Amino acid sequence: MSGSVNLKQEQAKLEDLYQSIFPYLLQTEGHLQEVATRGKGMIPEIVEYVVQAGGKRLRPALVVLSAQLGGSQGDDAITVGAAAELIHLSTLVHDDIVDRAVLRHQKPTVAVKFGEEVAILLGDFLYVEGFSLLAGLNDPQLVDLFARTTRSICQGEINQVRRRFQLDLTLSEYLSFIDNKTATLMGASMRGGARLARLSTDQATALGHYGWNLGMAFQIIDDTLDLIGEEEVTGKTLRTDLANGKLTLPLIWLRDRLQPAEKEKFLGWLREPTCENVQGIIAWVNDSGAIKEGLRQASNFAQQAKNALHSFSDSTPKQTLNAIAQYIVTRTR
Amino acid sequence: MSGSVNLKQEQAKLEDLYQSIFPYLLQTEGHLQEVATRGKGMIPEIVEYVVQAGGKRLRPALVVLSAQLGGSQGDDAITVGAAAELIHLSTLVHDDIVDRAVLRHQKPTVAVKFGEEVAILLGDFLYVEGFSLLAGLNDPQLVDLFARTTRSICQGEINQVRRRFQLDLTLSEYLSFIDNKTATLMGASMRGGARLARLSTDQATALGHYGWNLGMAFQIIDDTLDLIGEEEVTGKTLRTDLANGKLTLPLIWLRDRLQPAEKEKFLGWLREPTCENVQGIIAWVNDSGAIKEGLRQASNFAQQAKNALHSFSDSTPKQTLNAIAQYIVTRTR
Repeated sequence: MSGSVNLKQEQAKLEDLYQSIFPYLLQTEGHLQEVATRGKGMIPEIVEYVVQAGGKRLRPALVVLSAQLGGSQGDDAITVGAAAELIHLSTLVHDDIVDRAVLRHQKPTVAVKFGEEVAILLGDFLYVEGFSLLAGLNDPQLVDLFARTTRSICQGEINQVRRRFQLDLTLSEYLSFIDNKTATLMGASMRGGARLARLSTDQATALGHYGWNLGMAFQIIDDTLDLIGEEEVTGKTLRTDLANGKLTLPLIWLRDRLQPAEKEKFLGWLREPTCENVQGIIAWVNDSGAIKEGLRQASNFAQQAKNALHSFSDSTPKQTLNAIAQYIVTRTR
Repeated sequence: MSGSVNLKQEQAKLEDLYQSIFPYLLQTEGHLQEVATRGKGMIPEIVEYVVQAGGKRLRPALVVLSAQLGGSQGDDAITVGAAAELIHLSTLVHDDIVDRAVLRHQKPTVAVKFGEEVAILLGDFLYVEGFSLLAGLNDPQLVDLFARTTRSICQGEINQVRRRFQLDLTLSEYLSFIDNKTATLMGASMRGGARLARLSTDQATALGHYGWNLGMAFQIIDDTLDLIGEEEVTGKTLRTDLANGKLTLPLIWLRDRLQPAEKEKFLGWLREPTCENVQGIIAWVNDSGAIKEGLRQASNFAQQAKNALHSFSDSTPKQTLNAIAQYIVTRTR
């Protein structure tokens, strides 16, 4: 979790994991690039800016691996993966406005580069492109799966925004936010792949659990990196949660363990996230073991993800999914 | 077009037009209300705020009338109409942020009432609810029809935003913006109804033309009302186009008819939309006949809309569609 880890090393690690599905991810990139060329006027330039910024492409990878686990190698997994990524990119573009972030993947956010108004509309455009891809597959249940997921994401975000600077936020509220915001889409990506492979309900449910638990682990780590990461490593604006009054797992855990006087001081710092107070908070979560607790809970979810794959026999996609669960909790960006 | 028209009278007029489809619109309201109850946390309150604010419900009316014209009376028209309205409401919520509008249907906009962040996310939620309703109908072509439409809307809006305060905007660029922003969705609403009624390609195309031309007329009038309407009648923030540097038909028409010296003065006022300059612009478009020209061109589109119905034999839905085309160009809000 320290800034000494080299960014290039980190990227190489993820590329190693993706080795078995690399041709699929390349085709996914092709799909995403195509979306840009379909736009008129100023759209291609802006879509390309978002797509070329990169990202982990975790959701497309999950769709492909889940389909492969079920024995399906078809092109539809690439389409569903691209759709999941477009929905994800759309939420990132909108979230960066909501969180007033200025940096994403080492580059200015869409809102900063092209203006907030364009960012709002571009997010809408990316949503629609995602649903448009899904609609082309002639399977209304797939559209419905991702529609329900996107509804969850919006709900999670709205409810989190409405609870900003309300420092009585409970752990279960926080877990429900990240369930809606992140875990549901990763679960849906796995379920989407399972559907393409026509897996049984039980198997699809198991793969959905893998994705959901992976998403929970992923978001807890993301929120932890927001506290202790370094911007040159993560490539995005950090400390936005503190600046936006969003309580995350390490903060909630620590708050609930403080004596009244200390707690008052801690809440005072959270209420006024000046540079000095933010530094104080970061030292406090580090020293108190709150960061460690975040990592521990993330690891638990990652373990649950792996457990969900138990009933599947050993195979390259299963090994890759296990390795991704491992990677998620050790990543530094 | 004057402020002396009574708001209640105006509402009564629209209700008269809708008389034959009133039960359908009531069920549409039920659908929209249901969306609110499906949300968790703070969502129901905010969705209800948007839905209960009212509106003309023109798009649901078009879907139902188009389906009726094709002899279909099923519930699916209500679902498609509700979806079209949700997509429309979503664009309104986002547009009001982009345009920094404070008033809509006599009430503060979502962005003003609940904050810009919530408005961004609520717009996303409404989009998804719309597509979710469509996905439930098991007809991927319907999803695709509205996905393409929504893509148009985003493109129209982005391109318009990017051309703000660029005072060389041409009439054909303006017409392309309103085609994307408004006409395409009204066309899709008619096509959606036609599809439910399983009309022939020619008949569906004709109804699509009706909707498209109606939309063009509608938006030109909307943009004209933005210049000369009164806020207590229209119920929304006016003069936002001028404040946001958006050239609309009357402004473009006038600009292209001015002598160099006058044109320079006019462009200077457009560049700096202070209260005084806005008053000057409004007097100018009124006196020069530019407003009349806007109404004339809107009437032309409304006439094209009516012409598109020629091949259909006389019936109550046809009469209603004709009356709506008439209403559109005489409305004051």
